[in-house]
Amino acid sequence: MSQSPYALLQTIDDPADLRRLPRAELKRLAAELRAFVLDSVSKTGGHLSSNLGTVELTIALHYVFDTPHDRLVWDVGHQTYPHKILTGRRERMATLRQLGGISGFPLRSESPYDAFGTAHSSTSISAALGMAIAAKLVGVQRHCVAVIGDGAMTAGMAFEALNNAGVAEADLLVILNDNDMSISPPVGALNRYLAQLMSGHFYAAAKNVGKTMLRPVPPLLELAKRFEQQAKGMVVPATLFEKFGFNYIGPIDGHDLDSLIPTLENLKELKGPQFLHVVTKKGQGYKLAEADPVAYHGPGKFDPAVGLVPPAVAPRQTFTQVFGQWLCDMAAQDERLVGITPAMREGSGMVEFHQRFPARFFDVGIAEQHAVTFAAGLACEGLKPVVAIYSTFLQRAYDQMIHDVALQNLPVVFALDRAGLVGADGPTHAGAYDIAFIRCIPNMALACPADERECRQLLSTAYAQNHPVAVRYPRGAGVGVAPLSDLEGLPFGKGEIRRLRRGHAGEAPETAPRIAILAFGTLLYPALQAAEALDATVVNMRWAKPLDEDLLLEVAASHDALVTVEEGAIMGGAGSAVTEALNAAGLLRPVLQLGLPDRFIEHGDPAKLLALQGLDAAGIERSVRARFELPAATV
Amino acid sequence: MSQSPYALLQTIDDPADLRRLPRAELKRLAAELRAFVLDSVSKTGGHLSSNLGTVELTIALHYVFDTPHDRLVWDVGHQTYPHKILTGRRERMATLRQLGGISGFPLRSESPYDAFGTAHSSTSISAALGMAIAAKLVGVQRHCVAVIGDGAMTAGMAFEALNNAGVAEADLLVILNDNDMSISPPVGALNRYLAQLMSGHFYAAAKNVGKTMLRPVPPLLELAKRFEQQAKGMVVPATLFEKFGFNYIGPIDGHDLDSLIPTLENLKELKGPQFLHVVTKKGQGYKLAEADPVAYHGPGKFDPAVGLVPPAVAPRQTFTQVFGQWLCDMAAQDERLVGITPAMREGSGMVEFHQRFPARFFDVGIAEQHAVTFAAGLACEGLKPVVAIYSTFLQRAYDQMIHDVALQNLPVVFALDRAGLVGADGPTHAGAYDIAFIRCIPNMALACPADERECRQLLSTAYAQNHPVAVRYPRGAGVGVAPLSDLEGLPFGKGEIRRLRRGHAGEAPETAPRIAILAFGTLLYPALQAAEALDATVVNMRWAKPLDEDLLLEVAASHDALVTVEEGAIMGGAGSAVTEALNAAGLLRPVLQLGLPDRFIEHGDPAKLLALQGLDAAGIERSVRARFELPAATV
Repeated sequence: MSQSPYALLQTIDDPADLRRLPRAELKRLAAELRAFVLDSVSKTGGHLSSNLGTVELTIALHYVFDTPHDRLVWDVGHQTYPHKILTGRRERMATLRQLGGISGFPLRSESPYDAFGTAHSSTSISAALGMAIAAKLVGVQRHCVAVIGDGAMTAGMAFEALNNAGVAEADLLVILNDNDMSISPPVGALNRYLAQLMSGHFYAAAKNVGKTMLRPVPPLLELAKRFEQQAKGMVVPATLFEKFGFNYIGPIDGHDLDSLIPTLENLKELKGPQFLHVVTKKGQGYKLAEADPVAYHGPGKFDPAVGLVPPAVAPRQTFTQVFGQWLCDMAAQDERLVGITPAMREGSGMVEFHQRFPARFFDVGIAEQHAVTFAAGLACEGLKPVVAIYSTFLQRAYDQMIHDVALQNLPVVFALDRAGLVGADGPTHAGAYDIAFIRCIPNMALACPADERECRQLLSTAYAQNHPVAVRYPRGAGVGVAPLSDLEGLPFGKGEIRRLRRGHAGEAPETAPRIAILAFGTLLYPALQAAEALDATVVNMRWAKPLDEDLLLEVAASHDALVTVEEGAIMGGAGSAVTEALNAAGLLRPVLQLGLPDRFIEHGDPAKLLALQGLDAAGIERSVRARFELPAATV
Repeated sequence: MSQSPYALLQTIDDPADLRRLPRAELKRLAAELRAFVLDSVSKTGGHLSSNLGTVELTIALHYVFDTPHDRLVWDVGHQTYPHKILTGRRERMATLRQLGGISGFPLRSESPYDAFGTAHSSTSISAALGMAIAAKLVGVQRHCVAVIGDGAMTAGMAFEALNNAGVAEADLLVILNDNDMSISPPVGALNRYLAQLMSGHFYAAAKNVGKTMLRPVPPLLELAKRFEQQAKGMVVPATLFEKFGFNYIGPIDGHDLDSLIPTLENLKELKGPQFLHVVTKKGQGYKLAEADPVAYHGPGKFDPAVGLVPPAVAPRQTFTQVFGQWLCDMAAQDERLVGITPAMREGSGMVEFHQRFPARFFDVGIAEQHAVTFAAGLACEGLKPVVAIYSTFLQRAYDQMIHDVALQNLPVVFALDRAGLVGADGPTHAGAYDIAFIRCIPNMALACPADERECRQLLSTAYAQNHPVAVRYPRGAGVGVAPLSDLEGLPFGKGEIRRLRRGHAGEAPETAPRIAILAFGTLLYPALQAAEALDATVVNMRWAKPLDEDLLLEVAASHDALVTVEEGAIMGGAGSAVTEALNAAGLLRPVLQLGLPDRFIEHGDPAKLLALQGLDAAGIERSVRARFELPAATV
């Protein structure tokens, strides 16, 4: 046989192969699978800690359940690399999160084993319940399983689903994968409660009675047993999940196949909503990740023997870092500032703020809805809340932004990170819609800084207003315009002309239309490049709302055609704001709207993706020439 | 003294007056207040059952707490008439929900006693927690109280807030106003659990130990007491709310001032998160409302001595009823159809569907997020879910619509009731933004029927598609075009010309610009009226997405100017879809965009409100004449 370290794993091309293995072989398979995950992620980058934590659980689930007939819904889905490897995508792991390669999340279009596409947290119970109810209605015998982390359990959506599932007569198994860590360390009463379940009396008692409880028992008998246990001093109070109508089993060791498999086999026989509490360790089996699961949550490429090393050249400052620095500086100057994150302390650049201003830092858990209305409550009392939230996650708090913040015109600053395309995470995480969905809300303002310096300045501007303002900035670094150290803002709602066309003094023929490019956000820079070749005027609009109408009308009056450029959906976006203003003013000008098209954009390298949408300098130039019938080169 | 039935109530102009009353007088005050509420609502219409249920609780809260320094946040807020009456708005109750009158919900701009504006459910704990944390940060001694119903507790947002509050060291009092009914009868595990708390052992035991538990006791002593109670056979398990870190007290009788006041006085002295479970009866004190709290939830004007009577003339069929009938008819024809409502069975017209197809009816509770992803799960399995949801409440499930439905291109039908202005409920309930926020999402389609017949037809069209489609229709009745009885659809994405201008054969001078009005939805009819006076072409566009671009370009080519009309925000709305399409086609035409302006529209009579926005026939005509400099009359 092969000397390959993956000799057994290589024989598993789908879960049917796995189910043919003798139980005794599964531990070896787990070891190979874990090594393969580590090796694979170290070569492609991607999520690591969470995937090392689900190796045994994945094997056990596919071993016990008849996938894909039985449905597995993985909450968030960044822990599905072992699942992908066991379901026919082992070789394609080398293409993970790359353009044309497989997704870092489950995807219905990628595999019949991916029963439900996930990426945003806490959707799995709802989806799996839908599937279980459907099976019942259609009359198909099918197991539906949701695997959800303890962090994801803090989101209200998970509770809405538990509340509904607990009374629905459906065969649903919810597996709580409790690793005591979402992306940031977990917070909130639920996590404290889970910790309590796992400690002392609770855990010991649950362990002892685990086996008897696994047998399906008539409720009365079960009740009698519990009273007996209480009488003996074994405190096994009804868990929270039982109060929701679930049969609770656990906690059990999620890395012990000899616990997992018999437990799942028993659960498979039970009717009604079942809840299995599994305890795993993020990063399990890779010491470096076990020791620092946050650092190894989503690493880039690295040498597994060495681990993560600081880059030789300091990377360019990201917009996230610009925000984090601004937050600290503004907090130092104004003690009314409070910072709020829905479980994204690291991702939103708030670690230093947390350390320096712990009393004013609020990680509310994966709870975007609560985060925004909590901010509204703080703002009512004269504080100045800054809600740091990814554009894509603000979609979770849309109603709260409208109903609690905008309607009451409260001065909440929304710092929208990851606005635009996000690259490897793909369409689930793209911040493509915020311009359209924020712009239509009265009282809201929305700034689109073009670079790092403006990001800091516009955050200061936003903070100085007495109404809600969102500032959107993309993932990663900008062009490298260093922020100033002061906290001066830019004028509210005002743009600037960055380049004036030279006209017939320049190279363009006098007959060519006078073109002005209106850029919203970081695409200003490719627009400026394109404008050199086109001899176009370039306006840095800075605000999608309010629109700088004075500047727009001035530019429209002195030019023959306008081009709008934004890293966001064209439909309803900033370009449409421009045409609305022209319509309102009764000024007729051809407008070419450049931005994201009306389709979901796949995952891949962000620069490549932008170029594919024609949003790099060459693409902008090409589109303008094509639309306004300019010759291919003006020189 | 006065013979007025409100002699005591009339002496209360603010809560300070109330607090000067001797305790013994409060029962009389409650009786007067209850009579006043009944009398007042019977004259203006409005919410009744919920307000009759909160009379004593409102008196007790203002009696014990130092409002407005202490903050009262009323969840949903439709139970705040007693609160409004006691806080200086007694006389203004006659103007309730009318244009220029007071709001049917708490409103910060209306009174300093309205600490937080509410109307959408389940925001109160988040807001009150924000206020409590703010008080702590600023160093002010202040009590913050959230009053939340059992229906509102099923929303995930309430759990997100509980989860956060349970570990925040803030002095927050959450009062669960448990009346076992939201608007529809409540559903879900939580309500079953609350019923359990109130019955048998639990209630009795809780009652007995209530008084001792009210004293602040050190945790160890409390623990000892509980063990003692258990030993005595008194089963008082830790409640769900205690698992969240709250000190749970209750349930107590919410109509008994002698329970309420001492309990609140005790709670006022306790530190940390407190949870008081109060049991009230909707409609309390008015037999007819007690017997049928759903019917008396939000009645129109009526004679209290007689109660609600069926109208002498049958009212015109509402869009809600058209939907309800379509749902039943389609369900009878296609057994894959499943209907989902987030706690709006009555409001969404699903009572008959529920009765006829109970196995395919799902009321998931106030849980919009779960409703939509649950539908996605059902759709994955080949069922055809129809989610009936108010436009304003879809804002709560925006991310789920994007991430779970649209991204996976699942065939879910969204039946969006209350699209546009809603009248008496005001800005919190206006469905003003859905065109903008849905249109920007790839794979989504959005139909805007112009009348009852089209509503049914477009629902059938939506249902026949293999991707998500929303159909938006307004509150109330349309022009009265009776639906056909069949289930035939209209062509997907296609509009129709409803009126062709007569041109110089008609009355308009030949020099006048040829105008085409493009109507989206029910404003087609006022547009048709205006077009008669203007001799304009009128297009019934029917779809905001996909836009009928062929028809648009054909009309644009044969006309000099376009007018778009929609009952939705202009910003990003259907008019902007038209200009985007013109821009993309490189066709230059003046466009006048008519729709809702960029501000929140107050409550009041819907027809009046539309006229105030210039969206009646006269207003449309006026705007078109002004914009295109037509003479004031063409005759």
